[in-house]
Amino acid sequence: MPRLSDRVRDLRGSPIRAMLARTQRPEVISFAGGLPSPDAFADLPLPAPPRALLQYGPTEGEPELRRRIAEDLGAIGLDCPAERVLILSGSQQGIDLAAKLHVDRGTNVAIESPAYLAALQVFRFFGAALQTLDATDPGAGWTRAASPALAYVTPTFQNPTGRCWTAAERQALAEACDAGGVTLFEDDPYRDLTYDPCERTPICARVKRAPWIYQGSFSKTVAPGLRLGFLAASEDLFGHLVKLKQAADLHSNRLSQWIVLQHLNAPDRAARLERLVDLYRRKRDAFAASMARHLDGLANWTVPPGGLFFWATLRTPTDTAALLERALERNLAFMPGEAFETAPGPSALRLNFSHAEEAAAERGLAVLGSLLRENAARGFEEADKGSLLNGRAPDRRMHVRQGAL
Amino acid sequence: MPRLSDRVRDLRGSPIRAMLARTQRPEVISFAGGLPSPDAFADLPLPAPPRALLQYGPTEGEPELRRRIAEDLGAIGLDCPAERVLILSGSQQGIDLAAKLHVDRGTNVAIESPAYLAALQVFRFFGAALQTLDATDPGAGWTRAASPALAYVTPTFQNPTGRCWTAAERQALAEACDAGGVTLFEDDPYRDLTYDPCERTPICARVKRAPWIYQGSFSKTVAPGLRLGFLAASEDLFGHLVKLKQAADLHSNRLSQWIVLQHLNAPDRAARLERLVDLYRRKRDAFAASMARHLDGLANWTVPPGGLFFWATLRTPTDTAALLERALERNLAFMPGEAFETAPGPSALRLNFSHAEEAAAERGLAVLGSLLRENAARGFEEADKGSLLNGRAPDRRMHVRQGAL
Repeated sequence: MPRLSDRVRDLRGSPIRAMLARTQRPEVISFAGGLPSPDAFADLPLPAPPRALLQYGPTEGEPELRRRIAEDLGAIGLDCPAERVLILSGSQQGIDLAAKLHVDRGTNVAIESPAYLAALQVFRFFGAALQTLDATDPGAGWTRAASPALAYVTPTFQNPTGRCWTAAERQALAEACDAGGVTLFEDDPYRDLTYDPCERTPICARVKRAPWIYQGSFSKTVAPGLRLGFLAASEDLFGHLVKLKQAADLHSNRLSQWIVLQHLNAPDRAARLERLVDLYRRKRDAFAASMARHLDGLANWTVPPGGLFFWATLRTPTDTAALLERALERNLAFMPGEAFETAPGPSALRLNFSHAEEAAAERGLAVLGSLLRENAARGFEEADKGSLLNGRAPDRRMHVRQGAL
Repeated sequence: MPRLSDRVRDLRGSPIRAMLARTQRPEVISFAGGLPSPDAFADLPLPAPPRALLQYGPTEGEPELRRRIAEDLGAIGLDCPAERVLILSGSQQGIDLAAKLHVDRGTNVAIESPAYLAALQVFRFFGAALQTLDATDPGAGWTRAASPALAYVTPTFQNPTGRCWTAAERQALAEACDAGGVTLFEDDPYRDLTYDPCERTPICARVKRAPWIYQGSFSKTVAPGLRLGFLAASEDLFGHLVKLKQAADLHSNRLSQWIVLQHLNAPDRAARLERLVDLYRRKRDAFAASMARHLDGLANWTVPPGGLFFWATLRTPTDTAALLERALERNLAFMPGEAFETAPGPSALRLNFSHAEEAAAERGLAVLGSLLRENAARGFEEADKGSLLNGRAPDRRMHVRQGAL
């Protein structure tokens, strides 16, 4: 009976969040979400904020926080005045705003495959025709007539693959955006979670003429419950993004802005980050050791130099949704790889290593190993994926939609 | 150079927020925004929240807060289980979600004229064809073939008029929505700010078959800087709205949710609200007395039974944008009425009475009276409205757009 918009006819929830809902029982070992370890914010100072912040505030965000972020951006090579920093209600909001700004039904958007699931969801919702972008040859096929309006990338410790683009790959994408007049949308939530050295200069810093949006998050280095991120953008986009932000929620939470500013200005900020990175590096290494013990011969992976995820490709073609159903029966959760893909690839799993404790991760990977061995021996029958992934089986439909748009 | 979506070609910022930016100087007396008095949250308890809330949380919101809101809705006549309450990052977000859910380019949306400016902005942004909805005959012209997909109303102390719909008007709209299969979207941010008795039962409580969305805000009764609101919706819409919320910002700020829950559960909640209502009633009455002193013979108005605004229609047809330019030169701000309208009406001003202190309001209304007397005597020349209202003159264009869609 409700007369809904065309765009919601294909609306799907994120399988990640559907999964999180199913993994709340304490006995479940979850590699599914991208949750920080509770240890990450166990000692975050939470002083009472000034009472004046209870009033309405500016759409762009608190001036002091914007200045602080602009300084930090300058330090990583991205020159941007504080006047072009916009505080977001989490960096997911930046994806919504960028899509509103660029995407009509049929608009070409270039994106890696696999890519961040909730970005795929938003671009599809606005009707984007998704083109696969390959880091090793990022401007391939972008003719004047057919270059995308927007290129979305997470070049530093990508979700889900953990990949970090080389300097040459970054330069090639910047040049392709300049040549094609393509807006570069660089999502950079994991950059501070660096376990091994690698190139991290924002691609936006290399752009000369193309419009650009660079965004970051405080969910990984401060705390996700604060729902706070930011974007910086080229002059030709910034004013539009502020108006879209205003229409979306007037402005971001002022208490969170204040808490984050205290953190950014704290004398122990660098020491806190170092402790966090050490914590996650240890977790990553322990996870890698467990993977070697239990998945050897069953899957391939590289140890990610940063971020929160391992991306394991399976040696045997596998119905990963059916695998997940079996895993949940044994109190284990992970993310099936198909949900992240716009182009067919080998069967894969995304495994988060930041949240589960070390002993639990070891147990969970042992379960996964035994499931994969069973699978290799006989293969799973097709499961009822409809009940599993929030009412839809994303893998097949994604590829169909890709073709249809 | 950026290739932007069709929808942002007409993107306009809210004149209210542009105005707020110009009225930050302490010497300006502002009747422009809808800011609560700082006295409203001067003694709001702000205890430190539990640390577990720093983690990611559920998209729908904190379960305890949803239960509390569902109970409160039951008490005002709207039966809705907690499972159909969605916490919002301010009720502005609910407008974005409802528009995403219903509005394609050309979709008919019924809305009062005048109406809440930032709702007009969002519906226009998604391409709505706006139909004027008249409270005294709300279903007029809704044939089966041409009924709108969505009807947006603020029936209790409307922004900007302060009007409160009668029981008969409420019943008529509910029946019209049922008959036409029109989604009823009831925005109810002011309902607790009641200075004189009037009918306040939600229209959504009278709907029998039509889909519905009811939303409320904690900005007026708790604090706007917390950016927290909620919606409740019929079963056929709720699941979609949760997915849209998830795509927009994953979930709302958990610290704010906790602070608001403490407030809703506090033993002195009713007493606090009573003090707030007394404060605003006194401010309203003082404002009305000042208006009588300074605007008598120049404008017409009724004293609003609730909410935050007076709506003054001017006896002389006036270029209110030019009037505002003159007023700003004399450190006075208000909102020109045209910005709120979808159909031509008499020249009007929206005057907020909750924020300015009593003596300042008296001085500001004296300035306004003298400007209106000058205007009546000779009329203002056309001002450069382009520079005034965020780069656009909304009055003329609104009416043109109205025709075009």
